[in-house]
Amino acid sequence: MGRKMEDWLRFSVCYWHSFCGTGADPFGAPTLHRPWNEGTPMESAKKRLRAAFEFFTKLGVKYYTFHDRDMAPEGSTLEESNRNLDEITDLALQLQSQTGVRVLWVTCNLFAHPRYMNGAATNPDCHVLAYAGAQVKKGLDTAQKLGAQNFVFWGGREGFLSIHNTDVAAELKHMANFFKMAVKYREKIGLKCQFLIEPKPKEPCKHQYDYDAMSVIGFLKHYGLENDFKLNIEPNHTTLAGHSYEHDVVMASAFGMLGSVDSNTGSPDLGWDTDQFPMDIRNATLVMKTIIEQGGLQPGGLNFDAKVRRESTDLEDLFIAHIGAMDTFARGLRNAVRIIEDGIIPGMVKDRYSSFSHGIGQKVEEGSASLEEMEDFIKQNGEPKVTSGKQEKLNPSSITTYNKSTTLLCLLWP
Amino acid sequence: MGRKMEDWLRFSVCYWHSFCGTGADPFGAPTLHRPWNEGTPMESAKKRLRAAFEFFTKLGVKYYTFHDRDMAPEGSTLEESNRNLDEITDLALQLQSQTGVRVLWVTCNLFAHPRYMNGAATNPDCHVLAYAGAQVKKGLDTAQKLGAQNFVFWGGREGFLSIHNTDVAAELKHMANFFKMAVKYREKIGLKCQFLIEPKPKEPCKHQYDYDAMSVIGFLKHYGLENDFKLNIEPNHTTLAGHSYEHDVVMASAFGMLGSVDSNTGSPDLGWDTDQFPMDIRNATLVMKTIIEQGGLQPGGLNFDAKVRRESTDLEDLFIAHIGAMDTFARGLRNAVRIIEDGIIPGMVKDRYSSFSHGIGQKVEEGSASLEEMEDFIKQNGEPKVTSGKQEKLNPSSITTYNKSTTLLCLLWP
Amino acid sequence: MGRKMEDWLRFSVCYWHSFCGTGADPFGAPTLHRPWNEGTPMESAKKRLRAAFEFFTKLGVKYYTFHDRDMAPEGSTLEESNRNLDEITDLALQLQSQTGVRVLWVTCNLFAHPRYMNGAATNPDCHVLAYAGAQVKKGLDTAQKLGAQNFVFWGGREGFLSIHNTDVAAELKHMANFFKMAVKYREKIGLKCQFLIEPKPKEPCKHQYDYDAMSVIGFLKHYGLENDFKLNIEPNHTTLAGHSYEHDVVMASAFGMLGSVDSNTGSPDLGWDTDQFPMDIRNATLVMKTIIEQGGLQPGGLNFDAKVRRESTDLEDLFIAHIGAMDTFARGLRNAVRIIEDGIIPGMVKDRYSSFSHGIGQKVEEGSASLEEMEDFIKQNGEPKVTSGKQEKLNPSSITTYNKSTTLLCLLWP
Amino acid sequence: MGRKMEDWLRFSVCYWHSFCGTGADPFGAPTLHRPWNEGTPMESAKKRLRAAFEFFTKLGVKYYTFHDRDMAPEGSTLEESNRNLDEITDLALQLQSQTGVRVLWVTCNLFAHPRYMNGAATNPDCHVLAYAGAQVKKGLDTAQKLGAQNFVFWGGREGFLSIHNTDVAAELKHMANFFKMAVKYREKIGLKCQFLIEPKPKEPCKHQYDYDAMSVIGFLKHYGLENDFKLNIEPNHTTLAGHSYEHDVVMASAFGMLGSVDSNTGSPDLGWDTDQFPMDIRNATLVMKTIIEQGGLQPGGLNFDAKVRRESTDLEDLFIAHIGAMDTFARGLRNAVRIIEDGIIPGMVKDRYSSFSHGIGQKVEEGSASLEEMEDFIKQNGEPKVTSGKQEKLNPSSITTYNKSTTLLCLLWP
Repeated sequence: MGRKMEDWLRFSVCYWHSFCGTGADPFGAPTLHRPWNEGTPMESAKKRLRAAFEFFTKLGVKYYTFHDRDMAPEGSTLEESNRNLDEITDLALQLQSQTGVRVLWVTCNLFAHPRYMNGAATNPDCHVLAYAGAQVKKGLDTAQKLGAQNFVFWGGREGFLSIHNTDVAAELKHMANFFKMAVKYREKIGLKCQFLIEPKPKEPCKHQYDYDAMSVIGFLKHYGLENDFKLNIEPNHTTLAGHSYEHDVVMASAFGMLGSVDSNTGSPDLGWDTDQFPMDIRNATLVMKTIIEQGGLQPGGLNFDAKVRRESTDLEDLFIAHIGAMDTFARGLRNAVRIIEDGIIPGMVKDRYSSFSHGIGQKVEEGSASLEEMEDFIKQNGEPKVTSGKQEKLNPSSITTYNKSTTLLCLLWP
Repeated sequence: MGRKMEDWLRFSVCYWHSFCGTGADPFGAPTLHRPWNEGTPMESAKKRLRAAFEFFTKLGVKYYTFHDRDMAPEGSTLEESNRNLDEITDLALQLQSQTGVRVLWVTCNLFAHPRYMNGAATNPDCHVLAYAGAQVKKGLDTAQKLGAQNFVFWGGREGFLSIHNTDVAAELKHMANFFKMAVKYREKIGLKCQFLIEPKPKEPCKHQYDYDAMSVIGFLKHYGLENDFKLNIEPNHTTLAGHSYEHDVVMASAFGMLGSVDSNTGSPDLGWDTDQFPMDIRNATLVMKTIIEQGGLQPGGLNFDAKVRRESTDLEDLFIAHIGAMDTFARGLRNAVRIIEDGIIPGMVKDRYSSFSHGIGQKVEEGSASLEEMEDFIKQNGEPKVTSGKQEKLNPSSITTYNKSTTLLCLLWP
Repeated sequence: MGRKMEDWLRFSVCYWHSFCGTGADPFGAPTLHRPWNEGTPMESAKKRLRAAFEFFTKLGVKYYTFHDRDMAPEGSTLEESNRNLDEITDLALQLQSQTGVRVLWVTCNLFAHPRYMNGAATNPDCHVLAYAGAQVKKGLDTAQKLGAQNFVFWGGREGFLSIHNTDVAAELKHMANFFKMAVKYREKIGLKCQFLIEPKPKEPCKHQYDYDAMSVIGFLKHYGLENDFKLNIEPNHTTLAGHSYEHDVVMASAFGMLGSVDSNTGSPDLGWDTDQFPMDIRNATLVMKTIIEQGGLQPGGLNFDAKVRRESTDLEDLFIAHIGAMDTFARGLRNAVRIIEDGIIPGMVKDRYSSFSHGIGQKVEEGSASLEEMEDFIKQNGEPKVTSGKQEKLNPSSITTYNKSTTLLCLLWP
Repeated sequence: MGRKMEDWLRFSVCYWHSFCGTGADPFGAPTLHRPWNEGTPMESAKKRLRAAFEFFTKLGVKYYTFHDRDMAPEGSTLEESNRNLDEITDLALQLQSQTGVRVLWVTCNLFAHPRYMNGAATNPDCHVLAYAGAQVKKGLDTAQKLGAQNFVFWGGREGFLSIHNTDVAAELKHMANFFKMAVKYREKIGLKCQFLIEPKPKEPCKHQYDYDAMSVIGFLKHYGLENDFKLNIEPNHTTLAGHSYEHDVVMASAFGMLGSVDSNTGSPDLGWDTDQFPMDIRNATLVMKTIIEQGGLQPGGLNFDAKVRRESTDLEDLFIAHIGAMDTFARGLRNAVRIIEDGIIPGMVKDRYSSFSHGIGQKVEEGSASLEEMEDFIKQNGEPKVTSGKQEKLNPSSITTYNKSTTLLCLLWP
């Protein structure tokens, strides 16, 4: 469709899971012993970065994403943390320029340090909020230094553990004011990167304010922030919020707010974030179809916010997992293109809504109709006719049987 | 707190479950054989209405709620349906005036008739949308005739069963335009009643657009409808959306959008709407505390959108269930007042946020701070101190032990 | 693998959804108006049966399943109900013999009539249990008359709505004694059909005793019934119990208790039984692989306990849905055969467990090892080596990339 | 009821959460810095143990529970780990004898060390199973040394992450053989402690074989182990399996298999194990009522397998949480006694089942009835009468209103 696959897909490797992950879980010790994790914190930070760029290059991926604290270790003071970050990002800049690999997005880790245990922008103690603000300022400077195309906010601790000790209205206002400071600073330094918020319903919080796409949209519009942010949707978070895999991608896009996708998956029978590599072509097809329909994700992309299982202890597993996931989304892209170009499903959907292109339907579409006209129309035309929704016919698995679709579709679609 | 209990609680009986319910479920036939369901449809509609007012009066409840099609049977044409409704609402008006019982809210049933199987305001066929519009016009006329204090929209079929046959963006726009027609007609006829939208995540739809409080708030703000609507929160819907019982009441209130509450409950281990009578004093306390803090629900109220179990076949069960639920909320109100007047919990919460009342906190609160100031503050003040969240101490069950609270609180709180 | 596809699949059409279903749901009236539902109850029962056999024949399916009350209407007394059933089963016998279509299984509807609202075999009133017993006696006679290969018990009301009014231990014992009466009667009349219990966790009950495969296995073994029953697994019920789609098929088979499969699906984001036609080839592959590994399902089969959506109002939708589902399972069968014959995945799995084929592993396998030997082994051999679980590599989507598998597998597997 | 409260409740403090817990979660670093965690591993193990006994004594609790690896650090070889354990348990024995505090149960940690990442008793590599066996042997020796009243098996890694790489039947058999070795060794050394299995449905595994009470009962009976084990039920695990809080306590007791209770709670809106202190009197009442009805839990007890939130960083929070939980269960006990002695609810329940005490009901109860007798009974007696289930009336919240219950019940029951 006039673009290379890599331009539609814009794959990105995430630094934290793939290079900082240890395989520890709440019931078990680290299992992944990586050769780059040796030496002092700063030494291993450099080894890790070189290993990562070797991986990006071997894999042929053009983008990566990271948190400030993944790349460089936290120091004992803000100043030391910032110096650490400066030193490592000097090396990153050099590796980026050598390899052509670019930063899809940067984010600040405002959830792992104990100071953030009761929230960052929504902490009851403004001293903590100030710390988060200082950290974001440096994060934005870093984004500018490395030419990041996006900057993500994921508020893992922005919510509550107990409603009994929480002033929800105050916290929401503080969070909005925090975002406004970031917007102002972005303008001040002339940073050209898209701001993204990543929704998640819960975990580690009992309840996170950025529950799902619509919660964030409601919040942004309430505080007049909707023009400064888009959404970074992670399907594993979408399913944790009780939706189907593709739901938040579809909704964010329908509201003009889809900025990027953290392409991963969970298990529908588990109630926590498993961050698995996406391997379901059916889901990938639905996501890619939505992305094509909105004209692509740029400057966003598909970031593999996924980790090998803690039992997948071989280094080759890291390659296998990324390649399997890339193949899955590539097949999803090809399916989506085929569906759109083939035109059978889109044609059936267009037909379903054809009554809105003329007469009273057109007036409703344009917003110029009234209830009185509705009543008149019914008095004249009576009961509408029953029209089958044809859900089984439009189901992907039966489409090759019932529609005059090409053989290729049959083979590609699961 | 300066008001009678009944003014805080504003209890309402729902007509559909309590007077039209049959006890049928997807796996079983009707079990509730009510004496008022005899005769022709119009005869039984009248018997049912008289029985209902007898019940309201005996129970001492001042409000009731109904759908257009609960009160009067659907005819074979719109005109006949409207005539049926006129005839029965004449009787309702008379009974209201005899008893002083008033309408808390009216709503239109836009989901049960087969014509609405693919949606009402979001139907792909504009003919169906027109039918829904005609029905809402009559619904608004009825609201005016009976002096209803609110008008509710619950979009049981406004969503989708399959994403494959659905144009989400088109449907959302149609729904918004549908609401705009209703707003315009309300103005035209000078109707003074609050419009309410009732969120529900799913069931009967696979996905309902009005998923939860924040979804509706996002939708309303996107289409510029936020000043014309508030929310009617049903806790059983809230828990189906993956939230805790009180969540949507708290969030809607924090955004200034809480209009009324459909006081019922589900079972947290079940994934569908059970519409049970609320019997949990702990939950009732949290809801009442939120209501008190926003100054009450008026013109909304607490509507018992709940049904006796299909196995509760005795007529007395209808009384028992309502009285039990009323007692539950009455105790919740007394607990909430006690907590507020006692001041211990509110004081602890206020203390937690005290840093926002002066200095840099005050600037954040007012929205005049910047990231640069945050950084300066941290450079001067360093790491914040660790403060326990005291979640176990603030837990209601332990409050009597650890705080110098009154004995009465001990007895009232669960 | 030495058998025809139809012998592995043994497809069956379910009578209740496909011929008795009306499209009614808890929020909506019937939408499916079938031409065979005209006339008196007995007239339409006959028309329905003829239409069903026409459908079976056109579809080419060899088996069907039914409840006693689907086939013939309940009369005002047991005697009348039995006469109705006799009259209709005379016709069924004739149609079976004309078409060669056979009964996969019969079951008694012990959940829809109001008398069963508090349970059938677990009703607190023995009078109701006696009614259920009388109905099952007739059901077994009917199974014999029609040559049914299996008889299913699904206890939709065998559980509780409220623990507060329930004596769980008493109810479980009554249910066991009820099953024992059925076993005795089966022997007495020399009926040669497999008894099956179908687990479901909840709905319509808040809690059903036959929660999942393992619950039923535990129950059967406790009461000494394990040799008289196998399980009929419905994957939509499995997912409602919190398991993955294939879980109960796999577990029942591992315990030697898998008798038949109600092949349908739900939506993982919904908390109730949607009984959709199965359209996911990945799931079908896992189920068929398990079935092949245990040597087939006979005398059980794959019964489409599924219904067209209530919006799928065209008669052709009934064909489309069945054909789509049959294609899905046929592709699943071909995938499963390919996986087994190809041998790559089975080989990798066999390798993983190879330590149990010799030495200390063999002693553990045979049950002759002791803790002392374990300790000695570790004292001699020390820490085991770390072995990657290779979960990503064994994932079906990446198998074509990483293993030397055939091209065909690539095309068939999703 | 003839026993002291402490004899019904048998409270126990768990060592791992309360003395080894750090507050780390999958998204955050440790927050709980305890004074006893200083020095070398063996030094801090001793400080920790002394602190724990100080806590037990101050709290007045008579029992504690621990894993082998909580008490003493894992060494670099099995021999070293065993020596560490010997040294620390010498101290434990001394502190037990000084304080009178006893071990409710011991368990082995067979899930945290990387060697167990693919399972312990169900590991595909028998070398790992052997390590687990050696560890259990030492665990049983330790149980004997310290006079533990029970020994618990919790198989956190006994299940699977991916069905694709797993041989379920082989793993189940290995697990059964592993348990048989433990039973044999218990006999050999003459250890007098009750073996318990603790069910959990998932987490860390995707699927755990010991899913819930009934799964374990089915497994035990299949392998002939039911006389050697009872169940240790943790309600947070019960709710994760899709049941209500009290479900597995009730079911295990109904099957004569309830041995002990890990008294904690989760949040019904969260899908993972939060291990919160139990604070819901309603739930505690149901659990205590079941315990009283089976004559108590001895030699089991109520173990607080619960942790303070990671934000509850004050040392006093540890006291507050335990005391709040103990009060909750103490009130639950008092409520349960009141309900039983008052007799109203038990009487209503007994009445519901009274038909089984005579005539045909008695024959069903005794197992001597037949289907033919059922049919005869119905032919003579016809349709049963409809009896309301009275669920709302039996609901605890309304019981004081509708039954002639005492005032005290009103105050105690939530």
